[in-house]
Amino acid sequence: MQFTTTQIIEILGTISFAISGSFAALQRRLDPFGVLIIAFVTSIGGGTVRDLLLGDTPVKWMRDVNYCFLILATSLLTIFFRTHIKKFRITLFLFDSLGLGLFTVLGIQKGIAYGLSPGICIALGTITGCFGGVIRDTLLNTIPLIFRKEIYATACIIGGMLYFTLMYFDLKTDVAKVLVIGFIFALRIVVVRYKLSLPKFGY
Amino acid sequence: MQFTTTQIIEILGTISFAISGSFAALQRRLDPFGVLIIAFVTSIGGGTVRDLLLGDTPVKWMRDVNYCFLILATSLLTIFFRTHIKKFRITLFLFDSLGLGLFTVLGIQKGIAYGLSPGICIALGTITGCFGGVIRDTLLNTIPLIFRKEIYATACIIGGMLYFTLMYFDLKTDVAKVLVIGFIFALRIVVVRYKLSLPKFGY
Amino acid sequence: MQFTTTQIIEILGTISFAISGSFAALQRRLDPFGVLIIAFVTSIGGGTVRDLLLGDTPVKWMRDVNYCFLILATSLLTIFFRTHIKKFRITLFLFDSLGLGLFTVLGIQKGIAYGLSPGICIALGTITGCFGGVIRDTLLNTIPLIFRKEIYATACIIGGMLYFTLMYFDLKTDVAKVLVIGFIFALRIVVVRYKLSLPKFGY
Repeated sequence: MQFTTTQIIEILGTISFAISGSFAALQRRLDPFGVLIIAFVTSIGGGTVRDLLLGDTPVKWMRDVNYCFLILATSLLTIFFRTHIKKFRITLFLFDSLGLGLFTVLGIQKGIAYGLSPGICIALGTITGCFGGVIRDTLLNTIPLIFRKEIYATACIIGGMLYFTLMYFDLKTDVAKVLVIGFIFALRIVVVRYKLSLPKFGY
Repeated sequence: MQFTTTQIIEILGTISFAISGSFAALQRRLDPFGVLIIAFVTSIGGGTVRDLLLGDTPVKWMRDVNYCFLILATSLLTIFFRTHIKKFRITLFLFDSLGLGLFTVLGIQKGIAYGLSPGICIALGTITGCFGGVIRDTLLNTIPLIFRKEIYATACIIGGMLYFTLMYFDLKTDVAKVLVIGFIFALRIVVVRYKLSLPKFGY
Repeated sequence: MQFTTTQIIEILGTISFAISGSFAALQRRLDPFGVLIIAFVTSIGGGTVRDLLLGDTPVKWMRDVNYCFLILATSLLTIFFRTHIKKFRITLFLFDSLGLGLFTVLGIQKGIAYGLSPGICIALGTITGCFGGVIRDTLLNTIPLIFRKEIYATACIIGGMLYFTLMYFDLKTDVAKVLVIGFIFALRIVVVRYKLSLPKFGY
């Protein structure tokens, strides 16, 4: 069995978001089924919204049950090892940021495969990266939603711009993907670590 | 005019959720149009999300206006008889639980008709049963959302597993449907009555 | 370049909602990317939900990047001129109400083009008009959601009924459109100015 770059990115992203979803649900003290549902929604949310917008239905996770098993296994392992992982909360944030980078690149690629213009591809990447978390937070009724989301979205948009800049300079696609994933990942860490933010305009 | 089992389940489920949606809206003191909208959304929400995921569009209620009239009539009757029904709040909970069972079975069946694997069919059933209520609560901005939803979702998943177990033992489809509807209905009542819950894991 | 009535309505509606979305985001003190995202979501939200329900995918804004540039330009201008516009808060409310009328008519028309029955067309119009604002408020986690929304939805439904009444009396389509847009616009102003509301039924 041989995996393509895209499949590897998809698998890693699915695992990352399943872990982040499971932990968000455990924090709210949901029962095991609740944890499973939130892990599932976080993992497949972004790609599902993207595929609905593109009209690519039945959506992917319905056609490939392996993703469901992957999420189930990840979620059960997270529940099982929660006491160990809880000491490494930073690990979770890292997984979440990694998932964001991975899924953003996936979304951009799918847009390109559909022949859409760069601006739309970046929007698709941002949707793929962010929407799992948006649906997760909406279901969990987490209050300070948008503040976290913004850093998310802004990182995706800038990462998307970087991707098309790299493509413009004829970089190899696989190299560009890895660079952008690393960039979004690093940007999130720097932003959260140094509490950076763009200037805001009130009125 | 002859109804199939599926149509009967669909009609009963639509009525049940229209009643539950109307009452939720009346509780929040919405005006008549608001009540109508919430009743509509609660009734068609789950099936709409399911059909979007499957790519079965235009979604059903657009093609069959009878469901809209059914919801309109149910909603008006609920507004009209609200003072009588309010004494029987338990009746409402029963309707809601009945709707949950009915729509879960509908979703599972539609998944089977699309040739999807059992795990995906159970997910579709859960979505069909739960999403009307999720959208209703999101629109009404009801706070303790997930706690109720969980009992919902867990009942759907267990009911779905029961359905495939019964099918495995070659039970007649119609009998299995009625048994699963009854099971989800009864499970919800027992759970709420005795305040049962699955063990939870915090971290 | 020659615009059809539908295109003019679409452009004006897109601008109106982009302005209203930008201001809602500025009020919550989001950074520039956040403002852009909320403006985008408010502008395309209603039409996107409508197109998803109809199965008209890839959704419009993906196929016609001009709408994205229009939203981007409107949003940047709103950020730039925010200190000037803030003195004219009433102007914003007017834009928002205008957008509501414009998009409701667009949704009704699209329903008619799909050969749907009047009741469904009115529902589509209401969805097109309201959902951008609903998604905006959900993302911004604005609390008193439904109260504002209701006046919205009720105005759309009544406006939709007026449209079909006018069509019944064989009015020219373009005249009926302008009348209904004006009616919804005026109704919203009268309702908000005189704090009118329909009688409510509690229980």
